[in-house]
Amino acid sequence: MYDPQGVTTSSALHVPQQMRAWVLGGPDELLLRDKPTPVPKRAEVLVRVDAVAICATDLEIIHRGSPASIQGGLPFNKNFTPGHEYMGTVAALGFNVDEFKIGERVTVEIHAGCNQCKRCRQGMYTSCLNYGKPEKGHRANGFSTDGGFAEYAVNHINTLIRVPDTMSDPEATLVVTAGTSMYGLTELGGLVAGESVVVIGPGPIGLLAVAVAKALGAGPVVLTGTRDKRLAIGKELGADRVINVTRENPVDVVKQLTGGIGADYVIECAGSEQTIDQAIHMTNRGGKICLAAFPHERVMTDIAHVVRNNIYVYGIRGEGKSATHRAMELMAEKRFDATRIHTHTFPLADLPIALRYARERIEDAIKVVVTNRQAGAISSAAE
Amino acid sequence: MYDPQGVTTSSALHVPQQMRAWVLGGPDELLLRDKPTPVPKRAEVLVRVDAVAICATDLEIIHRGSPASIQGGLPFNKNFTPGHEYMGTVAALGFNVDEFKIGERVTVEIHAGCNQCKRCRQGMYTSCLNYGKPEKGHRANGFSTDGGFAEYAVNHINTLIRVPDTMSDPEATLVVTAGTSMYGLTELGGLVAGESVVVIGPGPIGLLAVAVAKALGAGPVVLTGTRDKRLAIGKELGADRVINVTRENPVDVVKQLTGGIGADYVIECAGSEQTIDQAIHMTNRGGKICLAAFPHERVMTDIAHVVRNNIYVYGIRGEGKSATHRAMELMAEKRFDATRIHTHTFPLADLPIALRYARERIEDAIKVVVTNRQAGAISSAAE
Amino acid sequence: MYDPQGVTTSSALHVPQQMRAWVLGGPDELLLRDKPTPVPKRAEVLVRVDAVAICATDLEIIHRGSPASIQGGLPFNKNFTPGHEYMGTVAALGFNVDEFKIGERVTVEIHAGCNQCKRCRQGMYTSCLNYGKPEKGHRANGFSTDGGFAEYAVNHINTLIRVPDTMSDPEATLVVTAGTSMYGLTELGGLVAGESVVVIGPGPIGLLAVAVAKALGAGPVVLTGTRDKRLAIGKELGADRVINVTRENPVDVVKQLTGGIGADYVIECAGSEQTIDQAIHMTNRGGKICLAAFPHERVMTDIAHVVRNNIYVYGIRGEGKSATHRAMELMAEKRFDATRIHTHTFPLADLPIALRYARERIEDAIKVVVTNRQAGAISSAAE
Amino acid sequence: MYDPQGVTTSSALHVPQQMRAWVLGGPDELLLRDKPTPVPKRAEVLVRVDAVAICATDLEIIHRGSPASIQGGLPFNKNFTPGHEYMGTVAALGFNVDEFKIGERVTVEIHAGCNQCKRCRQGMYTSCLNYGKPEKGHRANGFSTDGGFAEYAVNHINTLIRVPDTMSDPEATLVVTAGTSMYGLTELGGLVAGESVVVIGPGPIGLLAVAVAKALGAGPVVLTGTRDKRLAIGKELGADRVINVTRENPVDVVKQLTGGIGADYVIECAGSEQTIDQAIHMTNRGGKICLAAFPHERVMTDIAHVVRNNIYVYGIRGEGKSATHRAMELMAEKRFDATRIHTHTFPLADLPIALRYARERIEDAIKVVVTNRQAGAISSAAE
Repeated sequence: MYDPQGVTTSSALHVPQQMRAWVLGGPDELLLRDKPTPVPKRAEVLVRVDAVAICATDLEIIHRGSPASIQGGLPFNKNFTPGHEYMGTVAALGFNVDEFKIGERVTVEIHAGCNQCKRCRQGMYTSCLNYGKPEKGHRANGFSTDGGFAEYAVNHINTLIRVPDTMSDPEATLVVTAGTSMYGLTELGGLVAGESVVVIGPGPIGLLAVAVAKALGAGPVVLTGTRDKRLAIGKELGADRVINVTRENPVDVVKQLTGGIGADYVIECAGSEQTIDQAIHMTNRGGKICLAAFPHERVMTDIAHVVRNNIYVYGIRGEGKSATHRAMELMAEKRFDATRIHTHTFPLADLPIALRYARERIEDAIKVVVTNRQAGAISSAAE
Repeated sequence: MYDPQGVTTSSALHVPQQMRAWVLGGPDELLLRDKPTPVPKRAEVLVRVDAVAICATDLEIIHRGSPASIQGGLPFNKNFTPGHEYMGTVAALGFNVDEFKIGERVTVEIHAGCNQCKRCRQGMYTSCLNYGKPEKGHRANGFSTDGGFAEYAVNHINTLIRVPDTMSDPEATLVVTAGTSMYGLTELGGLVAGESVVVIGPGPIGLLAVAVAKALGAGPVVLTGTRDKRLAIGKELGADRVINVTRENPVDVVKQLTGGIGADYVIECAGSEQTIDQAIHMTNRGGKICLAAFPHERVMTDIAHVVRNNIYVYGIRGEGKSATHRAMELMAEKRFDATRIHTHTFPLADLPIALRYARERIEDAIKVVVTNRQAGAISSAAE
Repeated sequence: MYDPQGVTTSSALHVPQQMRAWVLGGPDELLLRDKPTPVPKRAEVLVRVDAVAICATDLEIIHRGSPASIQGGLPFNKNFTPGHEYMGTVAALGFNVDEFKIGERVTVEIHAGCNQCKRCRQGMYTSCLNYGKPEKGHRANGFSTDGGFAEYAVNHINTLIRVPDTMSDPEATLVVTAGTSMYGLTELGGLVAGESVVVIGPGPIGLLAVAVAKALGAGPVVLTGTRDKRLAIGKELGADRVINVTRENPVDVVKQLTGGIGADYVIECAGSEQTIDQAIHMTNRGGKICLAAFPHERVMTDIAHVVRNNIYVYGIRGEGKSATHRAMELMAEKRFDATRIHTHTFPLADLPIALRYARERIEDAIKVVVTNRQAGAISSAAE
Repeated sequence: MYDPQGVTTSSALHVPQQMRAWVLGGPDELLLRDKPTPVPKRAEVLVRVDAVAICATDLEIIHRGSPASIQGGLPFNKNFTPGHEYMGTVAALGFNVDEFKIGERVTVEIHAGCNQCKRCRQGMYTSCLNYGKPEKGHRANGFSTDGGFAEYAVNHINTLIRVPDTMSDPEATLVVTAGTSMYGLTELGGLVAGESVVVIGPGPIGLLAVAVAKALGAGPVVLTGTRDKRLAIGKELGADRVINVTRENPVDVVKQLTGGIGADYVIECAGSEQTIDQAIHMTNRGGKICLAAFPHERVMTDIAHVVRNNIYVYGIRGEGKSATHRAMELMAEKRFDATRIHTHTFPLADLPIALRYARERIEDAIKVVVTNRQAGAISSAAE
């Protein structure tokens, strides 16, 4: 029986002592295993995972172990459960937690800062200086602590966002992606109504960056990419203009659209040498660039142009500064339809298939979601 | 007689109709010529130039015409007068100007924005979107409009800072350099007391960045460079630690000095691929880098590290946001001795010699100042 | 013939040398007079006024001459034309102006700063330290310089916002009101999605504050007032909850709606001792209050509560920081229907009647607009 | 023996199980008692108190129980130990604490936020929405949790600042006062070099606000008050001008000193109706006022002037945003001599006498410090 000391037991949900969870064996090896259901501590809750979206970073972690790994080493063969874009139902409460109730639907941010370092003390909890040190209180679920490809996961209450009844489970898994896009705009200053915004790269973060920027009143919002299908989705999500860079020069078009001066804000979500160069050259004097993606190798960069033009460049790695809450509010108000990027759904038991769809972009997959809503679905499928 | 319409004539200073001025012929060709003394318009004053410091950018403009040039083209053979780090005495007032009085000593900022574009309306007048368009009101004296290697220069009142009696002419020419350093710290957030600051590159901006950061309470303040003599001056100006990068690995030392996490702020004043890479790798998670120099070519840059660590990178090209006033206040209060970087003085008539000292760093020249204080000095020397 | 030196004459619009204009005689005395059509200077345009909304401040200026008056004295019997919420068509261009074209529809901000003082240099042009000194370049049309109750008005290009074809003249007059509401939110931090906002007072600024806050994703947005009809309009404009303070205690209700802690942001648009007190007591620890209205006398204020709770209080007097452009963008995108507050329309010739409707709230008047779109309408009606 | 579970016991300091502590009986009744030495938990340390300064708020808490009290009720007869301006030596470490070492000298901030609420997540830990709820992790030592009038006190590591060897114990007790002054300047924008600052009220926070503002380069720095002796100390701490309001009109003098426009920043540390009114009327358009004191009753306030002049007013209740670290850095660098406000010293055993000196300002007492440095001093005196 799951009744650990310090956990409120007046639970509406039955919680088993053992749970089914995918764990990472060697590179690209995922195994469905039984694990003890984790126990929430002070300021934590246990979340019954109902749905998880797959992020490109999940694929990378499963394949290479980067960009962050548990306990400072590679995450392989450590019984580690990846998955960070999940949502679910509060199943148990840690000591003294009254901020949430058993049975509430919640979606999650990835990062809980240590709350002790200089950055956390500034509110920059995703830049926590104790990153990867759970003993200091830091958690990055699915990165350095266990994530959501499992029946249950523990979350610090700081990482939870309530899900309204009107929002489906799969849509709720997209909040952290939208929150990352929103954080990009937050760090760019936030006052984007009437400002020109270019989003480079129609991946999930880029597409939702279009949606969020437009919802906040930015204009024109321009999206660049190479695949017309993706660009068409960007149009549906609010892009005033899309640029297929295989047919048009994005820097020229952006200059033309902005009276020759370039864009106020650029959100770079493609992460290649070429697109970073475009970002720099399509930003106007005093403008700002948010880097939300990156190339793995050093790249040739026109630093001179950045300096001569007083350009501001910010790197963001995921969500931050409670932007996920801001994103949720826009989604709850139906300001944009994030589900336009949700293309495929599989049961959690079929995670390997889901990962393949995401990795190989089978049937033009964008966001692949795995669900575990039917009680026992994962267990029965696996046993 | 100098008595143009609209100029207040109750002047304590005699102003000739013609003045002596150095003008740029071809590349690296400076000619001492007679030019009509310019006439200040609304919100402008005429400054009698008493002293001018030589900046590396002057050498570049005289040699290559970059980084900004008059009327959008190269500045050669256009009767253009370079020189932007000057100070002097108010000699005549434009229409309706009562902010300054004839006879007041002033030093200057370079940039007067157009006051019409989006950036100027945000207070970012050094990022003016009408840069190089004097017809829109923009001036960058010594860059796109006539500068200070002359007997007189016109300045918008926004670019003037009063010089206290206790400050010498040469010291006053250094205010815009200190103002650039101060602007770097301003854009880094300004609240630097107790924060770790690394300055890369002990040129004039770097050395005064050390002084300003220390004056504002930053600690530790670290200076990196290759020349021990320059580093020693940095020490005198307040550096808690200097690193000769030919003998120590600056990234390692900075990490060591900061408990392993890296510096809060880095001001990069060297502008090479290597130093930019050092800057990126010695900054802590969520930290900030001000780029105050740049390599002329694209360089290999570790963008991935910037993104993964939520690093903020700002380019600055010169002073901004009235930081020159803040720098002046610290200098007026003798919080640091900027004259430690002033190494040589020549009469304005010997400008070519002075430029050679600056260019070739003869006798370890740092800041070379040319003066025109003695009435008629330049004329007699030249005639 | 209207062809003053320096004005581009290749005009599509015929501009007469004399125009009809309402001028202020004694208190509450408006006279329709002929005046020379004003001539735009550098960076200015001549606007043919097509529509003007009436603001409570107009009534006050006409009645008492405050809060700001021309040339430092009372505005009576000085041939002064009030009216500041106008829109129209560009009719002539000042010297060197190419930012706008003859025939473009524009609406206006009130304030053009001097561009010389410390505040203007910070981008705070509505806090210009040369307020009321046109000789320094400051203009507050309808306050310290001639306004829009006339056939033509001169405007600095900084005060112009283009009007899209899809927006009617009367709607365009409301942009500066929405811009004031937007400025309130801008100064409160701007990142309001998901934050709780209370607007006190359903006047024009308050009602549009509801609309703007909701458009930006704030939630819940609460509106308090005494008149159910006005509150109902607030509901239509997006208020999640309205509170009739004659029936409910607004502080209690706000506390209840916010989990007991109070609201994140309060925009006070009623300006009474009681409502300011409510604002202070319904704001949460560390929350922010924007004061967009004020009582004419000193009032009892609970400063202790402000200090003990780290509350931030900002006064705003009109629009600022280009917020009008942000408001226009939301309106152009039809994010809310500002015309819900436009209740009455009169020809400009009937301005006195229109003012009476506004003053006495006849037929529940909120925004009364006077129009001058039909060529010669004002002349024929008045002669 | 003091060896609680979870506490690192390899301690250089002997820690008794029981300690001597002053506890609050009824109003104004302090009793020296034995209490169990508190035990630090995760992220906490035990501080051996070596010195404590007395703050006016201590007197208020002891007398009236406000402004904040333990567990939401009055603090009387609850075995509560007041005192919040203390420093000492790390005597024991909580679980997993390696940020500090046994034997290090530290001084303290008052507030440890809950790290869970919206404000803490923004870095505004002194505006914690769980203020007074220790079960949520909030601590305000000497306010809502036990303070420093005792041999030992527990502190969250977030509230600790290392004390350099060159700083005496009494000086270190003044860091939190200087940190409050610094926080005022931080919230005013921080870029104060060359800005005009008026400090109203030469109490401890006001006097150190003068020192900090001057150290950061503000100028002119003006101090107003009624007592010449205090004003003279302000002069020594850096005030460029002092105003005895019994002889000069402070608003007039400030206007005169600032070219007629008023001061950029005002820090109000007197907390009366009259001084708040002065603050409002001596601030320039767009200027900022920090309220660091308050009257206990509502006061007549000229809100109209605040609104018409776009003035920003911030209340602060104590330190915040790590400003204490910034203040420490300036003090460690000897930028000003905070000990100028330290007037009297007593042993901790004589706390009642010390409190009387502070309360009645005997011998012009400003800061009265009680010390417990001599081992056993308090015990022997009390036993």
